[in-house]
Amino acid sequence: MFVAPFFCAALAAKGRASVFRVDLNCDLGESYGAYKLGVDEEILPYVTSVNIACGFHAGDPGIMRKTVDLALKNKVAIGAHPGLPDLIGFGRRNMAISPQEAYDMAVYQIGALAGFVKAQGGRMQHVKPHGALYNMAAKSKDLARAIAEAVYKIDPELILFGLSGSELVCAGESMGLRTAHEVFADRTYQEDGSLTPRSHPDALIAGHEQAVVQVIRMVQEGRVTSQQATEVAIQADTVCIHGDGAAALAFARHIREVLERSGIVVQSFSK
Amino acid sequence: MFVAPFFCAALAAKGRASVFRVDLNCDLGESYGAYKLGVDEEILPYVTSVNIACGFHAGDPGIMRKTVDLALKNKVAIGAHPGLPDLIGFGRRNMAISPQEAYDMAVYQIGALAGFVKAQGGRMQHVKPHGALYNMAAKSKDLARAIAEAVYKIDPELILFGLSGSELVCAGESMGLRTAHEVFADRTYQEDGSLTPRSHPDALIAGHEQAVVQVIRMVQEGRVTSQQATEVAIQADTVCIHGDGAAALAFARHIREVLERSGIVVQSFSK
Amino acid sequence: MFVAPFFCAALAAKGRASVFRVDLNCDLGESYGAYKLGVDEEILPYVTSVNIACGFHAGDPGIMRKTVDLALKNKVAIGAHPGLPDLIGFGRRNMAISPQEAYDMAVYQIGALAGFVKAQGGRMQHVKPHGALYNMAAKSKDLARAIAEAVYKIDPELILFGLSGSELVCAGESMGLRTAHEVFADRTYQEDGSLTPRSHPDALIAGHEQAVVQVIRMVQEGRVTSQQATEVAIQADTVCIHGDGAAALAFARHIREVLERSGIVVQSFSK
Amino acid sequence: MFVAPFFCAALAAKGRASVFRVDLNCDLGESYGAYKLGVDEEILPYVTSVNIACGFHAGDPGIMRKTVDLALKNKVAIGAHPGLPDLIGFGRRNMAISPQEAYDMAVYQIGALAGFVKAQGGRMQHVKPHGALYNMAAKSKDLARAIAEAVYKIDPELILFGLSGSELVCAGESMGLRTAHEVFADRTYQEDGSLTPRSHPDALIAGHEQAVVQVIRMVQEGRVTSQQATEVAIQADTVCIHGDGAAALAFARHIREVLERSGIVVQSFSK
Repeated sequence: MFVAPFFCAALAAKGRASVFRVDLNCDLGESYGAYKLGVDEEILPYVTSVNIACGFHAGDPGIMRKTVDLALKNKVAIGAHPGLPDLIGFGRRNMAISPQEAYDMAVYQIGALAGFVKAQGGRMQHVKPHGALYNMAAKSKDLARAIAEAVYKIDPELILFGLSGSELVCAGESMGLRTAHEVFADRTYQEDGSLTPRSHPDALIAGHEQAVVQVIRMVQEGRVTSQQATEVAIQADTVCIHGDGAAALAFARHIREVLERSGIVVQSFSK
Repeated sequence: MFVAPFFCAALAAKGRASVFRVDLNCDLGESYGAYKLGVDEEILPYVTSVNIACGFHAGDPGIMRKTVDLALKNKVAIGAHPGLPDLIGFGRRNMAISPQEAYDMAVYQIGALAGFVKAQGGRMQHVKPHGALYNMAAKSKDLARAIAEAVYKIDPELILFGLSGSELVCAGESMGLRTAHEVFADRTYQEDGSLTPRSHPDALIAGHEQAVVQVIRMVQEGRVTSQQATEVAIQADTVCIHGDGAAALAFARHIREVLERSGIVVQSFSK
Repeated sequence: MFVAPFFCAALAAKGRASVFRVDLNCDLGESYGAYKLGVDEEILPYVTSVNIACGFHAGDPGIMRKTVDLALKNKVAIGAHPGLPDLIGFGRRNMAISPQEAYDMAVYQIGALAGFVKAQGGRMQHVKPHGALYNMAAKSKDLARAIAEAVYKIDPELILFGLSGSELVCAGESMGLRTAHEVFADRTYQEDGSLTPRSHPDALIAGHEQAVVQVIRMVQEGRVTSQQATEVAIQADTVCIHGDGAAALAFARHIREVLERSGIVVQSFSK
Repeated sequence: MFVAPFFCAALAAKGRASVFRVDLNCDLGESYGAYKLGVDEEILPYVTSVNIACGFHAGDPGIMRKTVDLALKNKVAIGAHPGLPDLIGFGRRNMAISPQEAYDMAVYQIGALAGFVKAQGGRMQHVKPHGALYNMAAKSKDLARAIAEAVYKIDPELILFGLSGSELVCAGESMGLRTAHEVFADRTYQEDGSLTPRSHPDALIAGHEQAVVQVIRMVQEGRVTSQQATEVAIQADTVCIHGDGAAALAFARHIREVLERSGIVVQSFSK
């Protein structure tokens, strides 16, 4: 089996575990003022961790409070989802920011969400950068290190979520943070272990069954079949599913059900 | 002596103290991106507490980090200075926000600054709303209560700064928060204990000597002479001085010197 | 019949016209980045003028371009819909802005939309302030005058839309602008000619039939029955209908149909 | 002599002109709300064209109005200076925007400034993109074309300013726009005709005399000595000088004086 060369991590050798576990996460709180996005309330029963937008690419203070409330009521683990300061672009457009700027915007947004979590008596479990910040930190050692440092300095108990095998999880690990390697249910992979870019026609897996099969293999076998038909080692600590789009709810219900039926324990890292 | 009727508080009867104490505070970190405002480094030796802008009316993540650093190096007490989301208006234009919105924007901004304070190993001492938010919370019971609740829920050890005798300090006190009644060195007062509005020609005290004399009387005697030539009871736990303008530094040095020469102990509440 | 005392205008005596005409207008282009609001494409066949958001309370440059395109394709008249700089509050929260600031934000936003209209070969018909700016300009002579001046200076051929009988239409008229007195299909009126505030339980007319009947009376008879059961003189040059909400489309189709069946000519002012 | 290979333009062969002309331009109106940047009033007597910020990277509606006023009083030619939507980064951080997004943000900002110019009875002469938008449009054919199209569609009489020999001026020329090749007084050049990046230690020319000599050669001889000691062809229709920094005023006065003493006519393109 091919070990992804592009990414930094020598992935943990996955022995035969008697019980497999995985976390199901979802982006939440992406509404803004009068604008509603996502089916937050409906998706919550199916996920175990949520990433809450912090006001830069989506979310506003009122939405953040309501979303933290919702997460606490549903007993899912809460994470901050800091993004680039680009509301019009939903944080999806790369920006040439310095590591210092990445650190600063991470601290600011994690702190802001932590305010609501603390005010409402909860506890933050993790941090997962959003969109272009997530992608840039997957490849840039310097940005990865800056974000990991922000997380560590705010609270060394926080878990850093990043693309499986990426610079971001590496940076977190070398800093002493707990990390979660993240895989995507509905995305295809390249032979170097990276996601097929959204610009490619084959970036997305349309069929629910195919997506579920890929997830189960990643969780149980630690591997995924790339677009180049090679087997790639991958670590699946947490699976990202979408909280918007017509089919999101149906898929969330389905994957949760199949994972559990397959004997995989679906739970957050706080359990 | 007249006790201000407009404001909520039956001010604490000020007995003859053997030693008078007062805190000197100043707004800090009001720069933004390429824009520099204030003489932050130069004013720090003369004050004991600073109120750091949190990104809504002024300040950005990078400025906040640098300002927290600067405060820690100068060993002054740190406070959050949340404002209205109005950068163009510098948070000075009243907005018809609901108490819930006031709560949300306070939690967000206090949390964001707390992120930097925590990341840099410091501890936040207080919260002081900025500009129009400060003025609205001085008069509106509902806004005052919302802001006090935000402070309390984030950390009940935080001290709430508000206009001396205002609804804001009242709300803080009834919630069980420590509060600091704030007076202004360079502003004149009305007979109801409120500040003369800036729109009035006599709102400002131009002469440094006159300003210092007023402050010393407020600290030692608990009273101020209003524009209507009446004596008004006032509590002076902390004195606000300005961190910008040509004369700011000279005045800061002067008032600090005269206060100490008068035997008044100038220190923050954290000492 | 009672003539509204609150508002400035001695409304034009409405003689027996052989043919009644009215414009149907709707707010458009209120999406923002990834956020979609309203059923813009679907509502267009039923209205004759549209008010396009200009980026302060809603709308972004890309949305503005698409909306101008859509309006041109549907041959409806185009207006700028400038609002307060308050995206989180959707421009609905009053802000203490000066007349100069109102002038400046009106010129900026009208100019920005005019850029798209010109680039795409169209012509702007009118300007209608949005939300809190509209309401404040209905009552404040100074804000009304500032906005009317902005419109006039950019292009004296533009038509100023304002609440029927309000200070805004008065200011426009005294400046020599063409104006359009606007009425609301689904709102109730007070005996002074003002809209019943949204905070009142009776602010909205729930039934479509009742709303249509009120509009037809306003157009044909120049009067409306107030919540105090008095008859109030009102001028209905243009009727505002909503472009969002579940029932918006059905109501738009219905009112258009009934107006035309009643022999009222439904057309913009550019025809 | 070496003709810059990197850039698109076969620069116009510069014959022996009997009289040389050049425009001196300067960025203006870069203040924002309470934040003051630049010495706008003082620099105006020395320049012939100004580029006014349009609210995205700097400038706000009030500042834009005052700056247009100032420019009209000083009889300098007015240009729009659209930038990226990045106030914290002052529009200097590259963003991965699409050509369509570049077009949209250009139309919006040019339109907004045109509103003020029209309201105050002036006429816009030119458009010059700012910062990262300027730099990206110098190299990307697609962004260059999008911006040139925005300018052309708003008003085909506008002059497009771009880096001498860049894709931006090429795009403008192929669209039929008048263009102005811009050179920088205080920047050094690479052998491909591009500016030495600011990150290099030799990016800036510190000495005023050396800067002036370079400008005069660019104007009179159409060439510049690169950092690689080669001669590079360059067209100098307009020279950018800075409006902020301690030495800006002294340099502006000096270069204006030396250019005129050298018999070069300093005037805008509107004369």
